Amino acid sequence: MPWNLTSGDVERIAIGAGILGTGGGGNPYRGMLQAKIQLNEGRTLQVVRLDDLPDDALVVPLGGMGAPTVGLEKIGRGDEGKRAVEMLCEYLGVEVAATIPIEVGGSNSFVPLIAGAQLGLPTIDADGMGRAFPEWSMIAFYFDGVAPSPVVMTDSLDRKIIIEGVDTPQTLERIGRAICVQLGGRAMVADRPISVRRLREVAIPGTLTLAHRIGDAVLAAQRQGADPVGAVGAVAGGVALFSGKISDVDRRFERGYNVGRVRLVGSERWQGATATIELQNEFLLLRIGEQIQAIVPDLIAMVDRERGTPITTEVVRYGLRVTIIGIPAPAQLTTVQALRCVGPQAFGYDLPYTPLRPASALHAQGG
Amino acid sequence: MPWNLTSGDVERIAIGAGILGTGGGGNPYRGMLQAKIQLNEGRTLQVVRLDDLPDDALVVPLGGMGAPTVGLEKIGRGDEGKRAVEMLCEYLGVEVAATIPIEVGGSNSFVPLIAGAQLGLPTIDADGMGRAFPEWSMIAFYFDGVAPSPVVMTDSLDRKIIIEGVDTPQTLERIGRAICVQLGGRAMVADRPISVRRLREVAIPGTLTLAHRIGDAVLAAQRQGADPVGAVGAVAGGVALFSGKISDVDRRFERGYNVGRVRLVGSERWQGATATIELQNEFLLLRIGEQIQAIVPDLIAMVDRERGTPITTEVVRYGLRVTIIGIPAPAQLTTVQALRCVGPQAFGYDLPYTPLRPASALHAQGG
Repeated sequence: MPWNLTSGDVERIAIGAGILGTGGGGNPYRGMLQAKIQLNEGRTLQVVRLDDLPDDALVVPLGGMGAPTVGLEKIGRGDEGKRAVEMLCEYLGVEVAATIPIEVGGSNSFVPLIAGAQLGLPTIDADGMGRAFPEWSMIAFYFDGVAPSPVVMTDSLDRKIIIEGVDTPQTLERIGRAICVQLGGRAMVADRPISVRRLREVAIPGTLTLAHRIGDAVLAAQRQGADPVGAVGAVAGGVALFSGKISDVDRRFERGYNVGRVRLVGSERWQGATATIELQNEFLLLRIGEQIQAIVPDLIAMVDRERGTPITTEVVRYGLRVTIIGIPAPAQLTTVQALRCVGPQAFGYDLPYTPLRPASALHAQGG
Repeated sequence: MPWNLTSGDVERIAIGAGILGTGGGGNPYRGMLQAKIQLNEGRTLQVVRLDDLPDDALVVPLGGMGAPTVGLEKIGRGDEGKRAVEMLCEYLGVEVAATIPIEVGGSNSFVPLIAGAQLGLPTIDADGMGRAFPEWSMIAFYFDGVAPSPVVMTDSLDRKIIIEGVDTPQTLERIGRAICVQLGGRAMVADRPISVRRLREVAIPGTLTLAHRIGDAVLAAQRQGADPVGAVGAVAGGVALFSGKISDVDRRFERGYNVGRVRLVGSERWQGATATIELQNEFLLLRIGEQIQAIVPDLIAMVDRERGTPITTEVVRYGLRVTIIGIPAPAQLTTVQALRCVGPQAFGYDLPYTPLRPASALHAQGG
């Protein structure tokens, strides 16, 4: 049953995708505005489930690539996604039935919806991460070690780069990132279309719906004067890991990514404690004192303490009062195979993946 | 009248192209070996003049890209040029009548001949530089400021990257160089085919023949016990600028190029003097003491003092006894438009282009 998004749905997805994005995936507010432009221009943002399409239908994975700080300032033309899909389909001589987000996080939840609206195609209610990650090789579609081929990269100047014959997703990331940097730190990427049959095996289902539910819970809590942070936890299975004030942000543009560290001083039951969060486009690792509290692929989301709205890596700044919510990663990200691609070691940490403790245990400990 | 190269012709072109390459363009000895393999396998290395082809015939510019030190060690599979032309023609849906070197210097004189032999196509006796230069934007075909589009880059792993829609050759160089680095520091590049009519306006004609004549003069002088350096000068219009011993080589792999500096201590009439040569893949600037003696786009060739054979930037080393020969740049490289692309400022020097003094004046001064 196709779901045509309303303006209110777009607002909810923006909040939820911002939280699931764990700091990255592109600025969700900007993505929301661009999605609303489509509605205002009379286009349809349509979400369908994988089961709504025939097995052999082809779906094109689409997303923006680059550092969030660049994406925030380099707005683009608005039809890069559409053009990327057109270029790829023309190159391959195929037609696609839908678009799918490479990641549900941040504005990348809207990128395939916007392109779909412009192309008259629906977008699948699923994605390749269930969150956001900084690298191509971290898309679940390619955990089998086979890089998509060909892929198209384009930008607001309509430059087109087709990459074919690269063996692993890691090599594709290396080559593609170098290109992205040369294109100004931001590019639109369309990957080789995937059949619905295959997506049933590798996509993380229902993530646009989940983003919508999270956003809806936040707005409902705001309206009712309830705790929006608790509402997020209830819907997403997450729990507050730390609350406090941002005391320092060290964020650099390096190798095409935003990397750095955020420091916090605690409040409420974390009064007197300090925390640090390491980031590469997304928040990767939370320490309270010296103790690791959460690590990729588990989701480390930062939200406004009062409103429960997401704070992403490109806008986090000194003085904000925030809560860090830990959300267990989808099961697809914690298999042995997946952890090779998205576990701590894939980010250069010589640390094991230690899953978040269940919410109940954390609550019991924290207060 | 087509000219089918013999093994002896290949040896002569290797010497001449090594000298015209002014240190770069890829290792000429390696290029010679690969060309001889074609002959040994029964293929034809055929050279034709632009006038031998109809005006509308399409010719594909072809060359290897990368740092000479990488090219020396990363031998490749041997059919990269053929594959690049095939990929480009398939992408465009066109047929080409011939190949043409982007640069006559070094092994890049042989790259289009080898691909042509494998494809059954001749190679044009002309090129885009009359020498070698390190950057895409330094090919005379693109001095008008319009980048070729599309271009294909490939490598020995059959990876394929198509770039389209880039505006200037300088931007293409920037993007292409980043890709080249990610491909391991070496790539094969085929540019959009150019009509014979257009090549008559922008190519530098007769450069394979010139390379052959230089090589022939060197070998003749060697046989006759005559001065091979003088023989080069006589054929190429050049003159010895310095003789001496290499006292230091500072050569780094940086941004995808070899860059650095060679120091020499003088001998013969330069006894007591020292010289330095700055390089970026090619030799760019010769100073004796503090005095600039030659600067791009004029050719600064380094040859073995006794044998007159070229010494390229990837093999230059401490202790070699060499002569530096200055050869005036072809007129096509010294127009106002051309100097913007290949003059000292294009290499970051805040220096004007001061043409080499005529050979007669230099001889009178030097001894």
